[in-house]
Amino acid sequence: MAQGIEVAVREVGLRDGLQSIDATMATEAKQEWCRREHAAGVPEIEVCSFVPPKLLPQFSDAEAVVRYALTLEGLRVAVLVPNVKGAMRAIEAGAHKLSFPFSVSESHSKANVRRSVAESLEEFKRILALRAPSNGGGRPLVSGGLATAFGCSIEGAVDEDRVRRLAGALAEMGADEIVVADTVGYGHPAAVRRVFEAVKREVADLPVAAHFHDTRGLGLANVFAALDAGVAAFDASLGGFGGCPYAPGASGNIATEDLVFMLEHMGYATGVDLERLLDVRTLLRTALPDTRLHGVIAQAGLPKNYHATAPAQEAAAR
Amino acid sequence: MAQGIEVAVREVGLRDGLQSIDATMATEAKQEWCRREHAAGVPEIEVCSFVPPKLLPQFSDAEAVVRYALTLEGLRVAVLVPNVKGAMRAIEAGAHKLSFPFSVSESHSKANVRRSVAESLEEFKRILALRAPSNGGGRPLVSGGLATAFGCSIEGAVDEDRVRRLAGALAEMGADEIVVADTVGYGHPAAVRRVFEAVKREVADLPVAAHFHDTRGLGLANVFAALDAGVAAFDASLGGFGGCPYAPGASGNIATEDLVFMLEHMGYATGVDLERLLDVRTLLRTALPDTRLHGVIAQAGLPKNYHATAPAQEAAAR
Repeated sequence: MAQGIEVAVREVGLRDGLQSIDATMATEAKQEWCRREHAAGVPEIEVCSFVPPKLLPQFSDAEAVVRYALTLEGLRVAVLVPNVKGAMRAIEAGAHKLSFPFSVSESHSKANVRRSVAESLEEFKRILALRAPSNGGGRPLVSGGLATAFGCSIEGAVDEDRVRRLAGALAEMGADEIVVADTVGYGHPAAVRRVFEAVKREVADLPVAAHFHDTRGLGLANVFAALDAGVAAFDASLGGFGGCPYAPGASGNIATEDLVFMLEHMGYATGVDLERLLDVRTLLRTALPDTRLHGVIAQAGLPKNYHATAPAQEAAAR
Repeated sequence: MAQGIEVAVREVGLRDGLQSIDATMATEAKQEWCRREHAAGVPEIEVCSFVPPKLLPQFSDAEAVVRYALTLEGLRVAVLVPNVKGAMRAIEAGAHKLSFPFSVSESHSKANVRRSVAESLEEFKRILALRAPSNGGGRPLVSGGLATAFGCSIEGAVDEDRVRRLAGALAEMGADEIVVADTVGYGHPAAVRRVFEAVKREVADLPVAAHFHDTRGLGLANVFAALDAGVAAFDASLGGFGGCPYAPGASGNIATEDLVFMLEHMGYATGVDLERLLDVRTLLRTALPDTRLHGVIAQAGLPKNYHATAPAQEAAAR
């Protein structure tokens, strides 16, 4: 049914995963992680965050990682930027896409980035302005992420219609993409389908991506619900990196390998070679020996009725 | 959206879970398990299998467990029966529901019960006949289970239309319920929705239940897909008991507590008190100290936007 429909799987473990763990990953390991996922066919990787190095030493090598990732042919190199300063560093480094995070929850916004949502919108406008031709003609894509879209660990419930309205505001301001994120694993599939349907109606042709955490085991159910709403791009972390510090042992982002398994098993075309992707887990195990890896398919193995779609030519040729 | 719609959660850990582990559970622990899940509001428990005790010593206390479960007011006491002999023992013991397993896959059928599917149909007919008034007026419900409906570890793929046809045959023979089972965790949500839609069309008003394993992480995504197809009854095992011996560490049945969490979080009414259900895990940990418990919600905790529907009056009064 889904035969051949393309779905983009985007690795965010190097950013969302690494920012949540204590251990610092060596620059060479990050570069190797990029190289091997790109070789496995992953089309986009969020390789770092341009936060002040003092705040998160994990990302003090942001420039070096971006520089390396840009050598990988055909890879879209995404980065997180928390403010204009970060955006300028990211553009200088040559990143293809800047992701700017909003919190739909006002309390989470203040706690996380010390800004109100209105102030974040102003900051976003300034970042969008950096794309102007006056800045050397560089025009990175700018993506707006709506964090805590399905609830927030401070406020609890989040108004679903507020997500739609914020998405509409970002679209109107000129965002190139909207990412709706279940930052704390509060979403359930009925809400996911409702919210994505409303957001997609609101922003018309603008790409809408989904970012789910699997904290409470509903990550892949939420993926199915989002697919149903027409979403065709998903963030994920290899090995489910990015666990919440308040839920010891709990998984973080949905695992990239489990997402690829589910999509390919359902007949979608991700262009990702699952066996090669699974191999990259050994790199994580070596580079971060004390960080627990999640992910189900690595443990259970592929079912006998599994037939991946042929990887896209482009990916195969890499 | 789903507010108030009733969905039945049926515990099968005492049968499907226990049959897959090496340790034998004491009769008193099984009875306590039943008592506490009933007290938590679980409406139906599959308490044992009436296989020959020599084959599975785990179930040599089947009669004693059924006898005890029958004292729990309002509980539907279900049992598995692999053949006419088992069905006669189960009826003698007073079970409310007999579940008879078919394998949709011919190879699995021969490997598992040493019968072809045609021979199983004959056996099922003989079991249905036991409900006749000549047998003391006792009329337990008889349920037909379609195992390996989404693939089989011997044959690989299983023809989806074969599931529909077999369901139709069982309905025509007079089954009281059809259970479609992903015995080995091969199903994915697109197939689940297709198959359940087709089966429900085929058997009209006959109850259709779903039995999913979470071996490859898609269990709850499959629940969502089945809900979408109108399924309102799900099997599950507390702590995800029932792991596959060929996938060490992999989960077995979907975890009852995770299923209840998902359904209540989505607004469905299960009548189950999740906190009390989670408490029953301590019993399993004590009774089976060497058996690993799965389940995500026990580890991650409930989200702050979680609002369970009020337990049904009936359950609250227990």
